[in-house]
Amino acid sequence: MTPVFSCARIRAFAFEVFRSIGCTEADAHTATNVLLQADLRGIDSHGLARLSGYVRLWEAKRVNSTPVIKTVHETPSTAVVDGDRGLGLVVAPHAMNIAIAKAKQVGTGWVAVKNSNHFGIAGHHSMMALQHDMIGISMTNASALVAPTYSVERLLGTNPICVAIPAHEQPPFVADFATTTAANGKLEILQRKNKDAPAGWIQKKDGSPSINANELKEGGALIPLGSDFEHGSHKGFCLGAWVDIFSAVLSGANYGPWVPPFVSFLAPPADPVGEGIGHFFGAMRIDAFRPAEEFKHHMDNWIKRFREAKTVEGQPRVIIPGDPEREAESRRMKEGIPLNEKVVEDLQQLAQKLNLAWIN
Amino acid sequence: MTPVFSCARIRAFAFEVFRSIGCTEADAHTATNVLLQADLRGIDSHGLARLSGYVRLWEAKRVNSTPVIKTVHETPSTAVVDGDRGLGLVVAPHAMNIAIAKAKQVGTGWVAVKNSNHFGIAGHHSMMALQHDMIGISMTNASALVAPTYSVERLLGTNPICVAIPAHEQPPFVADFATTTAANGKLEILQRKNKDAPAGWIQKKDGSPSINANELKEGGALIPLGSDFEHGSHKGFCLGAWVDIFSAVLSGANYGPWVPPFVSFLAPPADPVGEGIGHFFGAMRIDAFRPAEEFKHHMDNWIKRFREAKTVEGQPRVIIPGDPEREAESRRMKEGIPLNEKVVEDLQQLAQKLNLAWIN
Repeated sequence: MTPVFSCARIRAFAFEVFRSIGCTEADAHTATNVLLQADLRGIDSHGLARLSGYVRLWEAKRVNSTPVIKTVHETPSTAVVDGDRGLGLVVAPHAMNIAIAKAKQVGTGWVAVKNSNHFGIAGHHSMMALQHDMIGISMTNASALVAPTYSVERLLGTNPICVAIPAHEQPPFVADFATTTAANGKLEILQRKNKDAPAGWIQKKDGSPSINANELKEGGALIPLGSDFEHGSHKGFCLGAWVDIFSAVLSGANYGPWVPPFVSFLAPPADPVGEGIGHFFGAMRIDAFRPAEEFKHHMDNWIKRFREAKTVEGQPRVIIPGDPEREAESRRMKEGIPLNEKVVEDLQQLAQKLNLAWIN
Repeated sequence: MTPVFSCARIRAFAFEVFRSIGCTEADAHTATNVLLQADLRGIDSHGLARLSGYVRLWEAKRVNSTPVIKTVHETPSTAVVDGDRGLGLVVAPHAMNIAIAKAKQVGTGWVAVKNSNHFGIAGHHSMMALQHDMIGISMTNASALVAPTYSVERLLGTNPICVAIPAHEQPPFVADFATTTAANGKLEILQRKNKDAPAGWIQKKDGSPSINANELKEGGALIPLGSDFEHGSHKGFCLGAWVDIFSAVLSGANYGPWVPPFVSFLAPPADPVGEGIGHFFGAMRIDAFRPAEEFKHHMDNWIKRFREAKTVEGQPRVIIPGDPEREAESRRMKEGIPLNEKVVEDLQQLAQKLNLAWIN
């Protein structure tokens, strides 16, 4: 059985880990919040499961636990932020706050970030805008696992996008998705269960189709959203490319195949074209377009109409983006967070290494 | 054989048509340019093939040929534009110019448009930003032909997005795509040829899969990018929803199933939730982030690296977004524009109706 942990215990442990690698109290809180939100929202691949990986990158001196995050260029509606090799979990909320502050001043704010690291779930950062009656946008590039249409080389990361839009009585619309047919996390689940992947998710080293969930270890690649050219994989490639260019070519980070890997056992490319990995954030004040109440009432109407649509047999309702994560969140807030046994083992070792008490 | 017409002749004819429904000289030029660019770039479904449809909407008093386009709300980086029921072909460039002007002032400009009509190819409007060393973004909603994942009802249009990004020596990156597995234009081509559609493009009235290219006439629907849930159609739904909300809920246009149809023989919904159809435009000044030359040199590097990637057998190269359209454009500029026989027949009837000389 999968062991279940309370939110408070997980929070306390993650906080101590970040403190013991040298993060300030404030940064440790921020990073813990991002990780915890992933576990709460059911995106298990991006929560505590990643904690020991961040520590290993810090040990390898590829993560700076005391970054001096700087705005290196700005206009009234834009900024470029240098993350000083900090945890993306800390750099991203910092940058999103700048976007929000600019939106307060001139209607919208757009921040490109270089010299950062893995930023956790995109959803956390976009959703920061909601409480300000703003739309939030976040995206990040990542090390190359994805082959563009017709390519056998991996040139893009799974490059997720999240758009968070507030409503009134309805919960917010939160679309948070990798720009691939399937996120890497879904593949990892199949690997753990020793199962095949559906056709259209991955390709072999030579570009031919594969259903082997371990194909990436053999030089294969994930496929952009669309699965193949006939079903629009060139559009998924467009999306992934868009995220890469906004996150890294605008900011001065590494792009395409030059993005450094998230794991400490793989070395970053020897010929970088920029600094670290890149993100891109946006905040748009609703009332820079129309009164916020009016907009949010129409969002309620939009969400209700779509949720109440007539469905195919066997499906109770149309799923509004953000519904599954919100349901997971309210369930796990009460019942606790299940952590995979391998993750628990990994965290116990981490506790030992850092001389911390494990949460049990 | 498909008859071929020179660019100049098509331009002159379209201009006269717009003039004879009452457009000013300037508006007729603008609208003609947008249509012509579609034909030049090989997006035949959005060029002269649509001209008689615009005239029919004007006859039905659903298009205002002499609109007074107004900015009804603005901040330094945003505006909402009321298109006054004008041709989208005219309203969209007007709105994009506002976005560009705002970007000049504060770094970026974002314009939501209501009370508009079909705006032609998204690419035209985004590409207006390129000559200013800006990134251009355009999107529009459209009448509902697409069923969200698990829905049997059509609730979204094909809702295209275009992102245009300048480079230095390389041609610009121009990703212009419907957020469905296949654009409706591709389905129309199969209908004309009496051919089946690939599995995953369309569904029947009850939501079950179909390969009948005429299924939409029987109450079927197009499917969001991804084809089915297992292959990420919920992500395509997120994209289409994003476009719908930015274009219409932000601006005050109709959204979802309330978007009025583009054809005069289908009445608009009797219970509108806004005015006309909606668009959304963005312009981001490159040097609001980093020096434009520096950015454009990195874009050259990005494009070259992707174009030169090792490919699957039988495919000479990875296609950079914008390559096929640009190649069509340079070919058709020289050789002329082929128009389908049915389109020619339709235009001849239009010439007769408006008492204009046909181009032959």
